[in-house]
Amino acid sequence: MNRETLISHLQPDIQAIDQYLEKECKNISSPSLREIIQYTLFNGGKRIRPVLTILSSRLCVFARMPENVAEEDELHPPENLYRLATVFELIHAASLLHDDVLDNAENRRGKRATNKVWNNSQAILAGDHLHTIAMYLAGKLVPQRIFNQISQTLQDMIEAEFLQIQISETINLAEESYFAVLKGKTGGLIGTACEAGGRFLEADEDQCAALRTYGDALGLSFQIIDDLLDFQGNPASTGKERGSDFRTGRITLPLIHALRQAKEEEREGIINLLQSEPEERLARLDQVIDFIDKNGGFAYTRQGAETLIEAGCSALEVFPDCQAKRSLTALANYTLSREK
Amino acid sequence: MNRETLISHLQPDIQAIDQYLEKECKNISSPSLREIIQYTLFNGGKRIRPVLTILSSRLCVFARMPENVAEEDELHPPENLYRLATVFELIHAASLLHDDVLDNAENRRGKRATNKVWNNSQAILAGDHLHTIAMYLAGKLVPQRIFNQISQTLQDMIEAEFLQIQISETINLAEESYFAVLKGKTGGLIGTACEAGGRFLEADEDQCAALRTYGDALGLSFQIIDDLLDFQGNPASTGKERGSDFRTGRITLPLIHALRQAKEEEREGIINLLQSEPEERLARLDQVIDFIDKNGGFAYTRQGAETLIEAGCSALEVFPDCQAKRSLTALANYTLSREK
Repeated sequence: MNRETLISHLQPDIQAIDQYLEKECKNISSPSLREIIQYTLFNGGKRIRPVLTILSSRLCVFARMPENVAEEDELHPPENLYRLATVFELIHAASLLHDDVLDNAENRRGKRATNKVWNNSQAILAGDHLHTIAMYLAGKLVPQRIFNQISQTLQDMIEAEFLQIQISETINLAEESYFAVLKGKTGGLIGTACEAGGRFLEADEDQCAALRTYGDALGLSFQIIDDLLDFQGNPASTGKERGSDFRTGRITLPLIHALRQAKEEEREGIINLLQSEPEERLARLDQVIDFIDKNGGFAYTRQGAETLIEAGCSALEVFPDCQAKRSLTALANYTLSREK
Repeated sequence: MNRETLISHLQPDIQAIDQYLEKECKNISSPSLREIIQYTLFNGGKRIRPVLTILSSRLCVFARMPENVAEEDELHPPENLYRLATVFELIHAASLLHDDVLDNAENRRGKRATNKVWNNSQAILAGDHLHTIAMYLAGKLVPQRIFNQISQTLQDMIEAEFLQIQISETINLAEESYFAVLKGKTGGLIGTACEAGGRFLEADEDQCAALRTYGDALGLSFQIIDDLLDFQGNPASTGKERGSDFRTGRITLPLIHALRQAKEEEREGIINLLQSEPEERLARLDQVIDFIDKNGGFAYTRQGAETLIEAGCSALEVFPDCQAKRSLTALANYTLSREK
């Protein structure tokens, strides 16, 4: 399935999700808060997380009654499923709002970041509000078990931020620490978004575990490719300057692997470079890219993402073939080929 | 009941609450996050909100079986009640953390504010974490209705912050707007903390409504007296410079009333003064205090707080006399006489 076909399949769900997000905005009494949240929620987000919840639940419906897919909407009130799906977009948006304050970000998805259009205070409060709405909806809509899991995922996200702060000065970063941050910050929420779709339908344990495996893998590989694009991406496609993460001092998988593989002498040279000032680092980006390439860092990283996607898609084998499954597989493969 | 007797009655509950807060800290895996949250939770907070939840529920237990108070602990698992009570302390602490970032505060309760011991980023994340733990506990412990109410209270708190930002330039502030901010920012959470104690015990509607009325009144009058102490307090008792709120431009009830009462000419003079720079305003604090006093602003404000406390205590008449009721009444009266 190519990207255009995939998007056309997802479009109706994305539109429905947008409508539910609009509804949440309308419930906000303060006009200025509403304006900020509307700006934040409708700034070009791709709605990946809520779409995953919907597709995951559709997969479980289909597995239960493949001979009669049309009835799925009657079986399960779609309204509550969509509202549950929005929880993951709201949590994501809340965390981006606070991240942008933390990073003093200027832009988000090519538009001025909320903290710049308004100010830090308003962005912090808007994030708190989104967080509260998300938890309110989750507490209302889902069984205790998945509510607990959503709460745990949120706690993991924050703990991962702290781990990231803690290791931010470490140049010889262990691959394990890199993955711990990735799992907490990105993988967990995407895994939970998928699993929640199954839990909402009271799907069996095997199915829920499969959805979790798929989601965790998708989230991780999405972020790994992001880290690859920071070195290899075309700024015209990604909309971000090359090396913009590298400049801030984040050590990512391509570099972790290259440092591990390199000969002592070359390694020391790069470590010295990495200890220099951000602008100096950025000025010598090409040298670092050569170093990573020569020591197999890019190949290793891409291979890692591919292995994850393969495992994620294999996990879905417990489900029969259906449109939702084809979309999930296409989404996973798109992660690997994406250029932005 | 004097202050010392009241404190000695509350002490066992405060100790139990502290233990449950300690437990929550221990569940945090990241050592640095745990350290920040421990510092924040154990910086001299008086635990008013959780104590109110405990006393409120005890009132309902006693009302149900006055002849046999000793059984109350067996009737209702005290552990979950204490854990519910901590929810209100956690929410309060989360909101103070973010408030201190918003206000760039240097100190909190005479100690360095968390955002200064660490930094804004860490304080924001720690607030998010406290918020998440609070919602997780609430979702786990209480019936849907009170969970929804806690969520709504949190949303109201943030909307009130926005209202405060919105009206911060308004000098001719309506009393109604002043109270709307107070209700949202302070009254709501204290009212909900009280009501939750009743709802947890499935107390009847009259009792829950009475607890709500009491809590709302207590929260409002607590804040009103705070605003009075900003002008009339003794810095040696309050630990805050006189006029420190006034300096930031907040218009509070004493001034609202005085401006309403004053003659046109005098009123204009004060309005000009209020439009001047913070330091200029502060330098002429004594003139403003005279103005408020002469126009009955202090008397009106104190009267307002007294009326609220009277109404709050009257609401408790639906409950029989018992130690918890005497403590709640003493707590309310203490609000009026407090000097810090």
